[in-house]
Amino acid sequence: MADSRSHKGAQAVLMSTADEIETAFYEALQQADIEKMMALWADDEDVACVHPGGPRLIGHVAIRAAFEAVFANGGVHVTLVQVRRVEGSGCEVHHVLEKVQAVTGDGLRTAYVLASNVYQRTSQGWRMVLHHASPGQQDEMQDMIESSSVLH
Amino acid sequence: MADSRSHKGAQAVLMSTADEIETAFYEALQQADIEKMMALWADDEDVACVHPGGPRLIGHVAIRAAFEAVFANGGVHVTLVQVRRVEGSGCEVHHVLEKVQAVTGDGLRTAYVLASNVYQRTSQGWRMVLHHASPGQQDEMQDMIESSSVLH
Repeated sequence: MADSRSHKGAQAVLMSTADEIETAFYEALQQADIEKMMALWADDEDVACVHPGGPRLIGHVAIRAAFEAVFANGGVHVTLVQVRRVEGSGCEVHHVLEKVQAVTGDGLRTAYVLASNVYQRTSQGWRMVLHHASPGQQDEMQDMIESSSVLH
Repeated sequence: MADSRSHKGAQAVLMSTADEIETAFYEALQQADIEKMMALWADDEDVACVHPGGPRLIGHVAIRAAFEAVFANGGVHVTLVQVRRVEGSGCEVHHVLEKVQAVTGDGLRTAYVLASNVYQRTSQGWRMVLHHASPGQQDEMQDMIESSSVLH
């Protein structure tokens, strides 16, 4: 029983920040680990996921089906180039620039993706409630237009 | 002075829910009202906006410049077809289906847009922190894939 509680404690630590959920999300993508992926989402029927150029997927069943289709080809070679955060009380919005690489018939191809990841603190710890991704620009230096670059 | 307090009271009511901010956001779009639009955003340098197919705009200056460019052609004829909400403590994520109509050389054109709107409760009341929009499908009935439609 002590072991069981200790195990639950370890789980709680795993989910103790939005950043840890985000790290686990991209690990699940890289590892094509569907159970790890689905464990990250909040227990809410209206969690949503938009893959680049795709429809909006609402709820665990639709989100799982889409990731299973992606993972049928193996893990996604994705790395985070940049993360910016808007932190609220029990809620974080992360603006993420993803670098995705794939070997195609034309060799190694690189694409950038603009993702908005939203996390809420729930009774189960931090969980993802939204992943909304759009195709980015080709040049990773141009994907964000910041106030400073407009003013100065 | 009583009038001044009364006016402030009305402002506070205006910002008292995420839904009211959302209503004001789409009114500002329809009315091409840049001051009304910018008053809705949280006072945070990392608020972000992604227009369909566009880059990510970070901060008030970049967001304002993009809306001013849109509004130079007048208001946007946009209506909300559907809104679903994930409600957290001090944070709401709205999945919105927008119907946008415009008269072009080919007549009246209709497009659907998938938007994720995120609101946080701040010391100034509810404010928008993210508007992330993507091109939707042509048929408004197909823009969301719900769990029930996959299972049954």
